Amino acid sequence: MGRTSDAKQKILGAARSLIEGRGYSALGVAEICKAAGVPKGSFYYFFESKESLALAVVDEHWTAQRRDWARVLEGDGEPLQRLRGLFEETQAGQRAVQEGCGTVSGCLFGNLTLELSNQTEAVRRRLQEIFDAQVDMVETVVKEARERGDVAVVDTREAARAVVAQLEGQVMFAKLYNSTERLTPLWNNCLALLGAR
Amino acid sequence: MGRTSDAKQKILGAARSLIEGRGYSALGVAEICKAAGVPKGSFYYFFESKESLALAVVDEHWTAQRRDWARVLEGDGEPLQRLRGLFEETQAGQRAVQEGCGTVSGCLFGNLTLELSNQTEAVRRRLQEIFDAQVDMVETVVKEARERGDVAVVDTREAARAVVAQLEGQVMFAKLYNSTERLTPLWNNCLALLGAR
Repeated sequence: MGRTSDAKQKILGAARSLIEGRGYSALGVAEICKAAGVPKGSFYYFFESKESLALAVVDEHWTAQRRDWARVLEGDGEPLQRLRGLFEETQAGQRAVQEGCGTVSGCLFGNLTLELSNQTEAVRRRLQEIFDAQVDMVETVVKEARERGDVAVVDTREAARAVVAQLEGQVMFAKLYNSTERLTPLWNNCLALLGAR
Repeated sequence: MGRTSDAKQKILGAARSLIEGRGYSALGVAEICKAAGVPKGSFYYFFESKESLALAVVDEHWTAQRRDWARVLEGDGEPLQRLRGLFEETQAGQRAVQEGCGTVSGCLFGNLTLELSNQTEAVRRRLQEIFDAQVDMVETVVKEARERGDVAVVDTREAARAVVAQLEGQVMFAKLYNSTERLTPLWNNCLALLGAR
């Protein structure tokens, strides 16, 4: 039982790392199993298909990221400062990956959105749910900020979407220019988008 | 001579369409040639490698897009209205693709940035040059708007980057949700980022 779940975790870890490095489409099951150090039979014991593996990788990553986002966005402190904390954590996370492997890997969900959303409807739906949940979390903070008179937005949903879109766009550029400095303006841009300056 | 250049254009057209639909990594040269209706030998007559094809697809797309951007951004009219025209053209372009093939294809440069920038340095550099040029074009308009007192930004470079990042982020969501309506807020978000409201 312990060994079984260990093999599943090894496959998930190897797949996550390979997808981050090279994307999903170019990967084969044999390569994933080799990187995980498990026999190919193990793969199909745990996963019906490569698509179900992609969904499992996405779910595992979102479980961890949602916990991080909740800790920052639902924590103590003024609402706008919690948003600031989210950007700082994002930058620190991308910096840690860059220090480990030499390159900024970007956002797994953004990467898979552009690579896969027109290819598998199951992955598209899952990624939609995740970005909806991110926008929900940001919108809750924006509403709190508005109640305090800290921001001037009318449409809090659209404002939250703009903040998440700005985050994804700047993370894309951090990856392209392999520079986490690209994430520094997120805070000022967020204030501008929310009419807080 | 006419037939030769015809074969090259067929390969470029087929590659562009396949890359837009399924990304670059999963494509093989044989598949591209089959879609283009040309013998495989033609491919290596025109392109050294799949990477050099990717660069040619990127260059051809940028040549056309730069012309469109220049027409809108360097045209007549007030600076901010020209930026508005850029967003409207982007939305109309994505809508035309969606009407043709059923799905929003997103931005070819954004797609390739997330898929490829950590895999080939040549593609990374070319995409950096293209996004730098886009930011240049937007910054020129932002500076004009500032001279007229239409916007209140201090750092025009960072503001232009924020506008292009917002564009890429919202185009990502237009692709994910297969909805060009996602691009409607670009104009208001741009005004907010430029301190124009």
